[in-house]
Amino acid sequence: MTVAIYLPSQSNTDWWVTLMQGLLPDWDITSMASVTDPATVDYAVVWQPRTGDIAKFENLKAIVSVGAGIDHVLADPELPQGVPIIRTVGKDLTQRMQEYVALHVLRHHRDMPRQLQAQAEKDWHSIVVPVAPRRTVGVMGLGNLGAASARVLAQIGFSVRGWSKSPKSIDGVETFTGDSELDEFLDGCEILVNLLPLTPATRGILNAELFAKLPKDACVINCARGQHLVDDDLLAALESGHVKQATLDVFHQEPLPPSHTFWDHPAITVTPHISSRIDAETGGRLIAENLKIFDATGTCPDVADAARGY
Amino acid sequence: MTVAIYLPSQSNTDWWVTLMQGLLPDWDITSMASVTDPATVDYAVVWQPRTGDIAKFENLKAIVSVGAGIDHVLADPELPQGVPIIRTVGKDLTQRMQEYVALHVLRHHRDMPRQLQAQAEKDWHSIVVPVAPRRTVGVMGLGNLGAASARVLAQIGFSVRGWSKSPKSIDGVETFTGDSELDEFLDGCEILVNLLPLTPATRGILNAELFAKLPKDACVINCARGQHLVDDDLLAALESGHVKQATLDVFHQEPLPPSHTFWDHPAITVTPHISSRIDAETGGRLIAENLKIFDATGTCPDVADAARGY
Repeated sequence: MTVAIYLPSQSNTDWWVTLMQGLLPDWDITSMASVTDPATVDYAVVWQPRTGDIAKFENLKAIVSVGAGIDHVLADPELPQGVPIIRTVGKDLTQRMQEYVALHVLRHHRDMPRQLQAQAEKDWHSIVVPVAPRRTVGVMGLGNLGAASARVLAQIGFSVRGWSKSPKSIDGVETFTGDSELDEFLDGCEILVNLLPLTPATRGILNAELFAKLPKDACVINCARGQHLVDDDLLAALESGHVKQATLDVFHQEPLPPSHTFWDHPAITVTPHISSRIDAETGGRLIAENLKIFDATGTCPDVADAARGY
Repeated sequence: MTVAIYLPSQSNTDWWVTLMQGLLPDWDITSMASVTDPATVDYAVVWQPRTGDIAKFENLKAIVSVGAGIDHVLADPELPQGVPIIRTVGKDLTQRMQEYVALHVLRHHRDMPRQLQAQAEKDWHSIVVPVAPRRTVGVMGLGNLGAASARVLAQIGFSVRGWSKSPKSIDGVETFTGDSELDEFLDGCEILVNLLPLTPATRGILNAELFAKLPKDACVINCARGQHLVDDDLLAALESGHVKQATLDVFHQEPLPPSHTFWDHPAITVTPHISSRIDAETGGRLIAENLKIFDATGTCPDVADAARGY
């Protein structure tokens, strides 16, 4: 089988060619720029392909996106219709998200920002907080990522609630459904984690009205999409002291512009959209596995639904 | 029954006397300093008792340590032999320790110190690390605290090993036993958590020889006792770059003196012995329950093994 790889940087492309050749020793792995006969290419592995890059491979069996999203592939107006697009997701994405959520919920729970401040002041200052079973954490969005995160938080010992559009059942998690149960979900929720999909109904859901329904000193973690959050409403809630701290992994504009006030806000932790970013070695392994499955069976579980867009 | 209480601070002692009197209204609760007839004292509730404090109670039925460790009691060279020592453990202590261990393992795993540094520099710098199942975390000491911590780390998704003096079996944890398996346990252990009891055999176990057996860029978390660590050996291992970061909750001298180099070492996180600090109300409740059980039956499940030292 012949695989052509394209990433916007040639050095990255070369690195991926070497990686994939090691993982698929019996396959012919090449940089897209080195392809001499496009008709021989069976698979294209791409990130942000240029217009027409893929259309020239007339016998292409599948396109592999080096990432979970396929928006960068669908953006090509000359993309051939009907060629399956394989996402690079796997268990790793869920695993990484649950790590991120556990880490940042625990950071807020044990008030690490203030504890680190005490260290900076050489102050032997104990912050003793309620034990996790007496701390209520709420997860908005109970898809794969939200459900896994809620489950791990419950295993750590937190009192965990989940909220989603349709009814869900998760061991050790109290679940709430739909608009009618949102207020009840928010009432007493001391640490709020957003893992909702971005839809017209959820855009701007993290706003002043919602923050006001959280208890005083609540913490907010957004690891879904920047567009879920009304930035100024968060700043106002932090300013008033009603919300105590926030951790943000996603932003309206990414990278977050250097002038944005979030960067040096004392109550905001900024991470650069890394909550579930996978490393290249793992990505390569997932891609190799998917290619082998697809090549043997004509499909694989990570084939995207191009009509839905994800 | 008469209970004499001693903590290093008289104001803390007074606070505990009031607390315990409320929990044991029919008992006679007193500050050790206020005892007029030592022969009437049935129980001593202590933290870091001074030499000879306990020996003067000739009819003592049991000593209660305000904490899980009994080393601070055994440190008294005049401690009467054969008086049972009751540890204060309970579910809260274990719960708090597993939170602390999960938090700090995740912090090192995702390199939060460097990620926070990037935020301080307004640098959109992604730190992408291996996924938890490809990260080996080792827990030294598999008593209640170590076993619970190892279990939670495995539930989060880490590849977890445990090492202890006697053979243990924990779901999802690869266990190693005794001196003969220590090197194998340390080999490849990227994040090391110390939860050993302090005994002559474990004093100074976190030393240059042990650090050298860890892989390069290992992280070390000590939440057992300061005396487990050879401070200068850790500083040298950080200086050489073999050990990448450390989180220390316990120290040879507590509070950690302001002049100590750990406070502002860029690769060391200092927390003020809070890993499993229970709130005093909970501690008081546990102690009252243990005293009632011991007084009724002559023993209780939290009686320590003084010969073993924990």
